[in-house]
Amino acid sequence: MQLGMVGLGRMGNYMVQRLMRGGHECVVYDTKPESVADLVEKGAAGSASLEEFVSKLSRPRAVWLMLPAAITDKVIAQLVPLLHDDDIIIDGGNSYYHDDIRRGAELITKGIHYVDVGTSGGVFGLERGYCLMIGGEKGIVQSLSPIFASLAPGAGSTPPSANRKPDPNSTAEQGYLHCGAHGAGHFVKMVHNGIEYGLMAAYAEGLNILKRANIGAAAHEADAETAPLSHPEHYRYDFNLQDVAEVWRRGSVITSWLLDLTSDALHADPALMKFAGRVSDSGEGRWTIMAAIDESVPTPVLSAALYGRFSSRDNDEFANKVLSAMRAGFGGHLEKPKT
Amino acid sequence: MQLGMVGLGRMGNYMVQRLMRGGHECVVYDTKPESVADLVEKGAAGSASLEEFVSKLSRPRAVWLMLPAAITDKVIAQLVPLLHDDDIIIDGGNSYYHDDIRRGAELITKGIHYVDVGTSGGVFGLERGYCLMIGGEKGIVQSLSPIFASLAPGAGSTPPSANRKPDPNSTAEQGYLHCGAHGAGHFVKMVHNGIEYGLMAAYAEGLNILKRANIGAAAHEADAETAPLSHPEHYRYDFNLQDVAEVWRRGSVITSWLLDLTSDALHADPALMKFAGRVSDSGEGRWTIMAAIDESVPTPVLSAALYGRFSSRDNDEFANKVLSAMRAGFGGHLEKPKT
Amino acid sequence: MQLGMVGLGRMGNYMVQRLMRGGHECVVYDTKPESVADLVEKGAAGSASLEEFVSKLSRPRAVWLMLPAAITDKVIAQLVPLLHDDDIIIDGGNSYYHDDIRRGAELITKGIHYVDVGTSGGVFGLERGYCLMIGGEKGIVQSLSPIFASLAPGAGSTPPSANRKPDPNSTAEQGYLHCGAHGAGHFVKMVHNGIEYGLMAAYAEGLNILKRANIGAAAHEADAETAPLSHPEHYRYDFNLQDVAEVWRRGSVITSWLLDLTSDALHADPALMKFAGRVSDSGEGRWTIMAAIDESVPTPVLSAALYGRFSSRDNDEFANKVLSAMRAGFGGHLEKPKT
Amino acid sequence: MQLGMVGLGRMGNYMVQRLMRGGHECVVYDTKPESVADLVEKGAAGSASLEEFVSKLSRPRAVWLMLPAAITDKVIAQLVPLLHDDDIIIDGGNSYYHDDIRRGAELITKGIHYVDVGTSGGVFGLERGYCLMIGGEKGIVQSLSPIFASLAPGAGSTPPSANRKPDPNSTAEQGYLHCGAHGAGHFVKMVHNGIEYGLMAAYAEGLNILKRANIGAAAHEADAETAPLSHPEHYRYDFNLQDVAEVWRRGSVITSWLLDLTSDALHADPALMKFAGRVSDSGEGRWTIMAAIDESVPTPVLSAALYGRFSSRDNDEFANKVLSAMRAGFGGHLEKPKT
Repeated sequence: MQLGMVGLGRMGNYMVQRLMRGGHECVVYDTKPESVADLVEKGAAGSASLEEFVSKLSRPRAVWLMLPAAITDKVIAQLVPLLHDDDIIIDGGNSYYHDDIRRGAELITKGIHYVDVGTSGGVFGLERGYCLMIGGEKGIVQSLSPIFASLAPGAGSTPPSANRKPDPNSTAEQGYLHCGAHGAGHFVKMVHNGIEYGLMAAYAEGLNILKRANIGAAAHEADAETAPLSHPEHYRYDFNLQDVAEVWRRGSVITSWLLDLTSDALHADPALMKFAGRVSDSGEGRWTIMAAIDESVPTPVLSAALYGRFSSRDNDEFANKVLSAMRAGFGGHLEKPKT
Repeated sequence: MQLGMVGLGRMGNYMVQRLMRGGHECVVYDTKPESVADLVEKGAAGSASLEEFVSKLSRPRAVWLMLPAAITDKVIAQLVPLLHDDDIIIDGGNSYYHDDIRRGAELITKGIHYVDVGTSGGVFGLERGYCLMIGGEKGIVQSLSPIFASLAPGAGSTPPSANRKPDPNSTAEQGYLHCGAHGAGHFVKMVHNGIEYGLMAAYAEGLNILKRANIGAAAHEADAETAPLSHPEHYRYDFNLQDVAEVWRRGSVITSWLLDLTSDALHADPALMKFAGRVSDSGEGRWTIMAAIDESVPTPVLSAALYGRFSSRDNDEFANKVLSAMRAGFGGHLEKPKT
Repeated sequence: MQLGMVGLGRMGNYMVQRLMRGGHECVVYDTKPESVADLVEKGAAGSASLEEFVSKLSRPRAVWLMLPAAITDKVIAQLVPLLHDDDIIIDGGNSYYHDDIRRGAELITKGIHYVDVGTSGGVFGLERGYCLMIGGEKGIVQSLSPIFASLAPGAGSTPPSANRKPDPNSTAEQGYLHCGAHGAGHFVKMVHNGIEYGLMAAYAEGLNILKRANIGAAAHEADAETAPLSHPEHYRYDFNLQDVAEVWRRGSVITSWLLDLTSDALHADPALMKFAGRVSDSGEGRWTIMAAIDESVPTPVLSAALYGRFSSRDNDEFANKVLSAMRAGFGGHLEKPKT
Repeated sequence: MQLGMVGLGRMGNYMVQRLMRGGHECVVYDTKPESVADLVEKGAAGSASLEEFVSKLSRPRAVWLMLPAAITDKVIAQLVPLLHDDDIIIDGGNSYYHDDIRRGAELITKGIHYVDVGTSGGVFGLERGYCLMIGGEKGIVQSLSPIFASLAPGAGSTPPSANRKPDPNSTAEQGYLHCGAHGAGHFVKMVHNGIEYGLMAAYAEGLNILKRANIGAAAHEADAETAPLSHPEHYRYDFNLQDVAEVWRRGSVITSWLLDLTSDALHADPALMKFAGRVSDSGEGRWTIMAAIDESVPTPVLSAALYGRFSSRDNDEFANKVLSAMRAGFGGHLEKPKT
């Protein structure tokens, strides 16, 4: 079928390519002409303005937005006057699900249908397929099935879970799922990303323990300010993290795609020198914690993962100064330099 | 080659089976005669005592122990008088790596070699192969290669990491790895399990958020003791966790073997009714935190995962009473019943 | 001066009493006639309706609300039509500061001034005085100084901080502070309560460690499911928690009012039998975390304190079942009963 | 009575001064002659060697060690040959309680008694008195009562807890307590310090939230890598932290000695410029967590406080690089510079 794509960054570009491979007709638009040109060369119908973009789509139109969350509302406001009854806006970016609920309710008063799609898979999605978590009206979501089916990995990619009743019509088995009403897709994607933060931090903390397992080899001087290492003989291992990651990928309980990526990175750059150790976060991790708090659900692991990123950007600096000030106050402690 | 196995529980039994499939000759012993009998029927040489067991092994003997960590030292003490120079004791259980360092040093004074093997893979190892993390003297570990190669998944199971220099001789690519000196195997396995705790908790917390995403549907009365839910309209989702787990298994960033197992379990029993919600821990998670603290490595995620298990067993009960007592003290608060 | 008080629960009642002791004239209202009657007996002017309440106040009126956060907006809506230009509404309850910002902006369009007051001190405030954190227009806040001065502990209660320039006009030294614009008072109070959660949890966790310091005296059986205690001889202390709390109150680094209250409670009931161990939370702890996340400030301690309360109410139950399900999946583990 | 003091750093020096004020006779020794000279000038009997030190003490001798934990065992080994039956060694430093248990057992075989004393109060102890937590044999501890009574704050310093049966003989009310057998004193002190870490972190995190409460005033650009601040209007407060700390010290629930010290520090240096934000830890915080884990007691707050210190010293750096490497792997994310 025909789909319009607005926002041709890494994600939007790859999704259009995958859709065209699946036989779909794509009309594309981006504020950067070179992004449009790249996909036109690959077979898409390009457009130089939102007006032209809309005019190339047959009604009822299906317009997929693949934009930074912060500008999605602005683009929707520009699109709405150009659309007609029964047209569909699909937000495949990382919107806050609160915004989906609001948008769904607003747009339907104008006859426009809204669908939120949480999209996982990153830059590997082009080949691996995207995991799609979808929210919106049931009939509207079903009408977009051909699109979702082409973007998703497909049923052959992974056998169904043990104990699952075989269901050839299950879209979950194909890699896309209508999760519920407006916002449901981004809610499930938000939690997916919250989990992702926790998984990533678990590997990172574990590898950090292995990395420092040779501290017993360094000499430590006795002083009253630093905790002495009672048993240096327990910390004299010099682990090859490349090989450890490689072996864990085979038969262990902690095999995962994230471990595969970690192993790839360690093989390219064992000390990860090219990374500064300042880790961004892009919204879903925060929203996951806020939702958990609203629900009174304890999420110590997911929060710790988020806070680790904040600390990596030194946002704990003033708090640490307060600690040092207290220590100076009650104990006259002067802090030691970094170790 | 020939291997002796002591301890024929689930793990020991399956490992013997896998070894015999690999063409190895296994001599087996367990204090439970029926455990011995089962493997004899499958082709192993059984024994009714440790003495008989040792007598059936050719020198230099290789004796693999697959025992609860708490009794391994006792069995080693019984074995040592029966062994000779150059015999090898392999501990494949979940020993604390401190014990490995001690045992390695003690046994070598008696001419006996010690190898510690962290073994991951659980009950699936029989078919999937075991991930083996190995510590000990290099030559001794190499002499056991045929055994390790049969237990491990093998190179065909998973392609090498991107950026890895192709190395047909790499044992990491086959699923087993000599990690370093005595204790190195169990150290890496300990951290593996620490990571495992974190990964498990990340999925569990995320699924719990999805599970309670419909709390907005319940009515809440206004009172001064309970935080009101400002926006109940944001929590009216009734997610199908089976389908969510199923779809996440395809193309998402959080695909993993643990997710596969979780999905299997949710399909068998969507509300997980048969579990009481009290979660054991078996040592490695604790030791991981202790090692991290010795190394001054922050592990908030792995610790939170461990503490969640302690709390699941109500070990926070007195602490919670202290909180209620303080609240009663300063605010005259009477706690509400569970919600 | 004259003040009207709406909401005569524990907090409102005591504040009116303290104000009358300070020579102020109080007009009071509550939906429960007996709450009004109690204060009329103590010298306040009672009222049977909001209309009567407002009619007894001289313009410009000062109306203090001491209500559950969930109904404050409803009462404001009832009050507004009865008030006139330059009247002042003061919210002394535990409102979310977002609501203060909204209300301040809305009310000023009607000529009504709004002041938010975070009030700490609990049931002890009657004698000890209340710590008041205030947000609103500067002139309006200053016009209420006589009220704040009477409610606060007063300068004599605590000497100024070391290094503080002596300032007899500092209201901070008297125990009340104009913190900033609308919402500033409740923001500072919110963070105060967030800190309170953390402090409380720190004591609770520490006392819990002391409480269980005799676990080495209990026998443990060796099995593969439970982590053995390596050194039971390290855990054979039977601490008298009453005496420990009492001694910590003298000269230690951790002296505090919360410790005093904890010690009081332990002396009344050493095992804290009358508490069930289910701990409520009333909003500020949650909002503190949400603000921290918006600000990218890591708050692992304050979050952990909040989550402990959620877990105390068993909101981690499904998450724990997921963990058990995974353990059953990969290891065939059957969980042990509670210990 | 007579007491010998070895180790005349800040703590040892002040304790000798306080003891002499209490009418006790002090013999002192330190490897630094100037430290000895200072106290000789104040009235102590000095000594130039351990031998001279011991020779000046009457039997049964009471020798108090106030040394860095890492060298206590060395000094004990030097002392033991110089001592006789019924002499007493008191360790007032920050020893690990495991060491106390070991030392108590070893020394008694030589007829020497061992007492462990956890000492809290820091540099303020000279005037405020020290909170003493004591472990050892009951009779021996009692024989040292005059010493403990002079070091402690005394009963007048703080009224007994509500609900406490008045007991003029209670040493807890005087500020010192025999907590139990060998190690009990340092165990209670260890937990005291664990709590201290948690309290400190709670204040530090809360103040950090106040510090950054004006981030809404800064402009943020929309991009896909950084979580946008949805409501900048909620974060436009410019709090005066000095005044906030000052007001909290009066009537609030979070009054404490640590808050007093924090306020002192903020008044001396509002931005805490002289502190680098790298916070040391000196053993007890770590041991507290290890004890909690041995006891299966969840301590998320105390652990988070400890880990915050590790992170302040950048020990999370490799872990953060692993996170960035994963993000680059699945999303092609390039991290943003610090914000």
